[in-house]
Amino acid sequence: MTPHVLRTLYHWPLDPFSRSVRVLLAEKKLSAELKEVSPWDGGHLLSELTAFPTLPMLVEPGGLALTGTRVILDFLDDTHKTPGLRPALPGDRAEMARIIDCVERLLAGEVGATLLAERIDQRVRRIGSPDTRRLRAGFDSLRVYLQHFDALADRRPFIAGPTFSLADIVLAAHLSCFDYFGDLDLTGHDGLATWYLRMKSRPAFRALLADSLPGAPPHAHYASLDG
Amino acid sequence: MTPHVLRTLYHWPLDPFSRSVRVLLAEKKLSAELKEVSPWDGGHLLSELTAFPTLPMLVEPGGLALTGTRVILDFLDDTHKTPGLRPALPGDRAEMARIIDCVERLLAGEVGATLLAERIDQRVRRIGSPDTRRLRAGFDSLRVYLQHFDALADRRPFIAGPTFSLADIVLAAHLSCFDYFGDLDLTGHDGLATWYLRMKSRPAFRALLADSLPGAPPHAHYASLDG
Repeated sequence: MTPHVLRTLYHWPLDPFSRSVRVLLAEKKLSAELKEVSPWDGGHLLSELTAFPTLPMLVEPGGLALTGTRVILDFLDDTHKTPGLRPALPGDRAEMARIIDCVERLLAGEVGATLLAERIDQRVRRIGSPDTRRLRAGFDSLRVYLQHFDALADRRPFIAGPTFSLADIVLAAHLSCFDYFGDLDLTGHDGLATWYLRMKSRPAFRALLADSLPGAPPHAHYASLDG
Repeated sequence: MTPHVLRTLYHWPLDPFSRSVRVLLAEKKLSAELKEVSPWDGGHLLSELTAFPTLPMLVEPGGLALTGTRVILDFLDDTHKTPGLRPALPGDRAEMARIIDCVERLLAGEVGATLLAERIDQRVRRIGSPDTRRLRAGFDSLRVYLQHFDALADRRPFIAGPTFSLADIVLAAHLSCFDYFGDLDLTGHDGLATWYLRMKSRPAFRALLADSLPGAPPHAHYASLDG
């Protein structure tokens, strides 16, 4: 591979972890060359860059290769401080970190690995046969998380507190993947619905809303900014 | 449950994530009441404290309940700065974060979920029948990680760079669980073997080395501090 002169992000459009980094780059107004890599057969492309390649991978202009969403988000927020997207007080910072951990470890493990994986297998990869038990488990689990985040959105301007933070980016990035396939029903969750619409309306989300996979276009209301 | 006046750590002795927090508390000389909770049937005990309980869980004297190892480690390092256990420079900090992510997400996913889970099922829980394929997959995967970390330990005083950091604590905590069952063979990995012996020799590791589960005592050399 040629040496990196630009910042490069290796990503896959419907990987929620990749989406978090795309949004952060846009919020920080940082340019990056985006290279699409398939999560199921593109891993070998990245093994020259780091010992344990996973998506997303950010390669800085000097060649530093970073994986792990939280690693990448913290590094970019450390090196490009305006706007700063982590609260200053330890308790507020911990609440932000708790939400990110809850989304990336628990929600992604339970809903991403069932509902989203099933949609991707059926509509994008077109492999295997539909598994309604897996879908139902995903929907049941998603409902619990939506309820939790709705309660937070009801009483706070942003999901982790009074200011926009990395937690807003990560939660919105994950929900947007369910939304792509029409699986994000926020009926009865007015607080979260209002918050999600505000997130979608941010200029940094525009590129995500323009995503359309060949043969598997998004759900009709995916890119809509009407409440 | 009664209100928390002391700091409380809910943990399980052979959960590597719990071990990371126990070591950090000892490094910072912070006292905490340790409450043992079984990962497979104790979850309901914690559901009063937080929406999505997982081990380890730290409950601060004011009642703030934190889950997610990285969330807890960062919070304790933010609120108790001496000694500071995260490097100051963003690049060094990212390397520390990369190693923690590699251990907690990849090594724990591949080796913890196979080799360690199998040992716990057989020797502690005494459930199911031995699964040699799962054991072999775990050993094969462990070898790759040991090689990676040995190469780092060979050229650095500590695993993430020149200073002791959270990455040393997390890697040593995870390796110590394999070591408990006699599954950590560092023959041919002299750099890592020397580093691991130094970690085990720190006073903060003493409590881990004294762990002994009823009916499933540790391997003979587990607590040995001879090279």
